[in-house]
Amino acid sequence: MRGDVASAREVVVGLDIGGTKVHGVLLVDGAVVAEDRFAVRHGADGVVATATLAVDALAGRLAALVPGAEVGAVGVGVPGLVLPGAGTVAHAVNLGIVEPEPLGARLAGALGVPVTVENDLNVAALGAAHVLGLEGDLAFLALGTGVAAGLLLDGRLRRGHRGAAGEVGHVPYAADGPRCACGQVGCLELYASGSAIDAAWPSPDGVPAPAHLFRAAAAGDVDAVRVRDRFADAVATAVQTLTLTVDVEHVVLGGGVSEVGEPLLVAVRRALGRREAASSFLATLGLADRVRLAPPGARVAPVGAALAALVGRDAGRGPGHAAGPLPARPTTATVA
Amino acid sequence: MRGDVASAREVVVGLDIGGTKVHGVLLVDGAVVAEDRFAVRHGADGVVATATLAVDALAGRLAALVPGAEVGAVGVGVPGLVLPGAGTVAHAVNLGIVEPEPLGARLAGALGVPVTVENDLNVAALGAAHVLGLEGDLAFLALGTGVAAGLLLDGRLRRGHRGAAGEVGHVPYAADGPRCACGQVGCLELYASGSAIDAAWPSPDGVPAPAHLFRAAAAGDVDAVRVRDRFADAVATAVQTLTLTVDVEHVVLGGGVSEVGEPLLVAVRRALGRREAASSFLATLGLADRVRLAPPGARVAPVGAALAALVGRDAGRGPGHAAGPLPARPTTATVA
Repeated sequence: MRGDVASAREVVVGLDIGGTKVHGVLLVDGAVVAEDRFAVRHGADGVVATATLAVDALAGRLAALVPGAEVGAVGVGVPGLVLPGAGTVAHAVNLGIVEPEPLGARLAGALGVPVTVENDLNVAALGAAHVLGLEGDLAFLALGTGVAAGLLLDGRLRRGHRGAAGEVGHVPYAADGPRCACGQVGCLELYASGSAIDAAWPSPDGVPAPAHLFRAAAAGDVDAVRVRDRFADAVATAVQTLTLTVDVEHVVLGGGVSEVGEPLLVAVRRALGRREAASSFLATLGLADRVRLAPPGARVAPVGAALAALVGRDAGRGPGHAAGPLPARPTTATVA
Repeated sequence: MRGDVASAREVVVGLDIGGTKVHGVLLVDGAVVAEDRFAVRHGADGVVATATLAVDALAGRLAALVPGAEVGAVGVGVPGLVLPGAGTVAHAVNLGIVEPEPLGARLAGALGVPVTVENDLNVAALGAAHVLGLEGDLAFLALGTGVAAGLLLDGRLRRGHRGAAGEVGHVPYAADGPRCACGQVGCLELYASGSAIDAAWPSPDGVPAPAHLFRAAAAGDVDAVRVRDRFADAVATAVQTLTLTVDVEHVVLGGGVSEVGEPLLVAVRRALGRREAASSFLATLGLADRVRLAPPGARVAPVGAALAALVGRDAGRGPGHAAGPLPARPTTATVA
């Protein structure tokens, strides 16, 4: 994939549109040359306006960096289901988009370049593989408000029959657990998410709860150790579940909790190591060795969005796309 | 795939080698024209001898059926890990093969035709898609001594980084459960397997325990209803776990327990329906509708082995194999 990007020698903008901000990057030949964050306006019109503003702002910085160059494509990651067709987004509740909205077509019309729209975890999986230089199959496991994974298998994003691939947060975890917003009881994401830490370890004055928890645990606070280890065990179940179903080579821990950094990785690997010590079967699979951290700075999603745009645009051009990471499959939409 | 088979107009033998018997089929242009079962001799030499005997016996019936035709390829499904290279089989404990054994190369040498070796659940997935005429992504979920799935995604078998794809039987299910042979506690297969039914509902005089259990439950035996529903709930977890990770369109219930037939399907669909009634998220995924039964007679594995042989052989011929169901990937080995 990196070779494809380099040989394209092309300028592309990637946007990761979240509930409160847009994180945008300007990629030239696969390298980030500029990045910025923008406040999000909600609703379909607001999102189109915000994205247009972000692309214009990043394009405006291009002249000084690469004189004469122009943005050739735009990739957008959104938290929601992306439907076949014109980059149509549905169920992006955090963006105030509930009814299906042809976001890709509207943006392409506004910007005059091909626009590819993709689910945010899927672009994060693409970006993580690129930024970390990983070749094998990969899951980007987001530990944030909820828990879910973007899957990159055999060089392609795995979306599944109804877009539910990687929704590991709603696998049953604790039969006696509390009710989940999804209606089930004891879902994994009630234990392995950032929200779970927020609830179990309320943090004082603005310190993110995961950072506070892991610091207290490192300092020997017995309660913090218990909460941390219970959390790490739930994350270990997510890793094990991904291994025993899709058997990805790499599980990249992302989302807000991953900002804890190395202590998170250590705790999750230790939880997996305990399982491997008990089970020779699991030991042969090397679960602990599969896990790594997303690079700090949360840049993988916008970078992945930019990569999705490159491949999406190329896929629209000719028959050569089948070998690429994002062939013309139902839920990626590139519109010119 | 069906078109490929028909256009090949070719004779192929498929063998499903199990711990006690070999089930062999003779396929002409994709249709079974003969089948037979043979007792298995254990150990590598025994398996090679048994397979050779089976192929010879089926080939001997060819002359009367299709005068002048010859067996062009042989496909073999085995319960174990199939390693890259010459169809090497490892960890096939039920066959008395522990150390890696180049089964494919040895059989090809003995038979003088290309031989493709593949894991038995993988060939069952191929066979189930063919026999049931299913187009979309599929899991063949075997409910037998253990619980595991063969996965057919985007027309290819999914094996995973270390051959663990579909090993859903060793996902944690009950935190307070008994110890599993794998070393973990409360694995799903302790609740969703035929062995689990054998243990919970010992059957009198030779009647298979699952048949006895489902009959007793249908007759209103309160204990039987409880055991049946607990079993069906565990199978439902397997289906849900496969949906929320790979999101296959079809889950085909196979293995010994599937011989129960329709009452099994009804119980599992009811268990999934209860989950859908509780969770609008699960309801949108249509879990219950994804489940179906393997065709009775357990023919899907040998038929799938034969199909694997056709594709494996064609893959060895030229560059056209990438679009086929079994491209040249590490754990399929075809040797001439």
